Amino acid sequence: MRLRAELVPRPGLAFPDVALVVDVIRATTTAVAFLEAGAREVWFAPDHPSALALKARGFWVAGETRGLKPEGFDLGNRPLEALAAPVAGERVAMSTTNGTRAAHLAAATARHLALASLWNRRAAAAWAAGRAREEIAYLAAGKEGGLGLDDAYTIGASLAALEGEPEDGALAALAIFRGYPAEEALGRSAAARALVGVGLAEDVRAVLEADRSALVPVLDRREGPYLVFRRSGP
Amino acid sequence: MRLRAELVPRPGLAFPDVALVVDVIRATTTAVAFLEAGAREVWFAPDHPSALALKARGFWVAGETRGLKPEGFDLGNRPLEALAAPVAGERVAMSTTNGTRAAHLAAATARHLALASLWNRRAAAAWAAGRAREEIAYLAAGKEGGLGLDDAYTIGASLAALEGEPEDGALAALAIFRGYPAEEALGRSAAARALVGVGLAEDVRAVLEADRSALVPVLDRREGPYLVFRRSGP
Repeated sequence: MRLRAELVPRPGLAFPDVALVVDVIRATTTAVAFLEAGAREVWFAPDHPSALALKARGFWVAGETRGLKPEGFDLGNRPLEALAAPVAGERVAMSTTNGTRAAHLAAATARHLALASLWNRRAAAAWAAGRAREEIAYLAAGKEGGLGLDDAYTIGASLAALEGEPEDGALAALAIFRGYPAEEALGRSAAARALVGVGLAEDVRAVLEADRSALVPVLDRREGPYLVFRRSGP
Repeated sequence: MRLRAELVPRPGLAFPDVALVVDVIRATTTAVAFLEAGAREVWFAPDHPSALALKARGFWVAGETRGLKPEGFDLGNRPLEALAAPVAGERVAMSTTNGTRAAHLAAATARHLALASLWNRRAAAAWAAGRAREEIAYLAAGKEGGLGLDDAYTIGASLAALEGEPEDGALAALAIFRGYPAEEALGRSAAARALVGVGLAEDVRAVLEADRSALVPVLDRREGPYLVFRRSGP
């Protein structure tokens, strides 16, 4: 099994087999949290207006702009808030700066697609191993188009649970995972520093808890421009 | 001093201050080797035809396609061959697949530009520290647009000689440098495996020797589409 990590998202990347998108601070952690809270589906919108358009169909709308809840949204992009939200049995629409966009990039080609974070790093790896034929590829959402140390660390943490032949990016992610404690890798990242800057240091602490969840948000289908994730897991 | 590493080259990257381009296997090692051999200047061409065009002006022409010396070129992209070439006092034109292109990307914006490899990792860091005002940025040539473990390791090896505030990419490169022995980081890279595949395993061994050279190829000027590097150092 080829183990691959794309640490910088960019147009033209192709994912022939299984892809896992990682935006640990915070979109893919928040998506796991919504499913933990009992949400029936999480829809990743391509942009904010498309997310808001689902409000009329009874969706909760969650997301962020520069870290904060956008005008008109019901919820931010906050894992603990999502976990406590009364969304059981309901549908949630999400739109964020990096994470939901990276998911759309991977969805353009992947045969199977799911979302990974530290919360579900082992569960996501196991889900991938059960479906991949030749390659498990992680895609980091990154920070405004560049490498995010937080996502690279998280990819390494999930890859460490897999057997296979790592290529350059996966070997890099594994070294990052082994080289820093979680608090340091996430805490020193630009994504964390931006959150601290808007008063959301609590969210950085919240995403650190490895293996808190056994749920994996898996792409079930597309609905127009939306990616519809449902839970895989117990 | 901000310490930055761009591990994946991509259009639109901007370098406001000092930039160091790294293609350890092999273009930036070979460029150092030509200067060690006494070459007066190394010109990085934007493509093979532009390199060949300099032959009529008395240049040696060196480079590679899929690892090997292209038709009509005098020399390959081989550090030990370059070191032994009778180029003292002469000019060399180079065109390669990843390295010379990355240099052109960085040259579009950098205030100062030089080439780094394991051979001159400390000398290149010291040169950069002597010129930078706010940022020292490394750009990895990578492998066909993706992350190269060999270049990421080399960037970490050079960054380790600097004091400053590393951002996400630099922290990643430092972890890669600390996480693998040089033989492993370079040997497992896609670039090395491609070279071994064309019978050039010797070149992978050759580029490993850290601090073999005190020379730094520094961008002196542009001549039309060419980047002209001259030596800085003893």
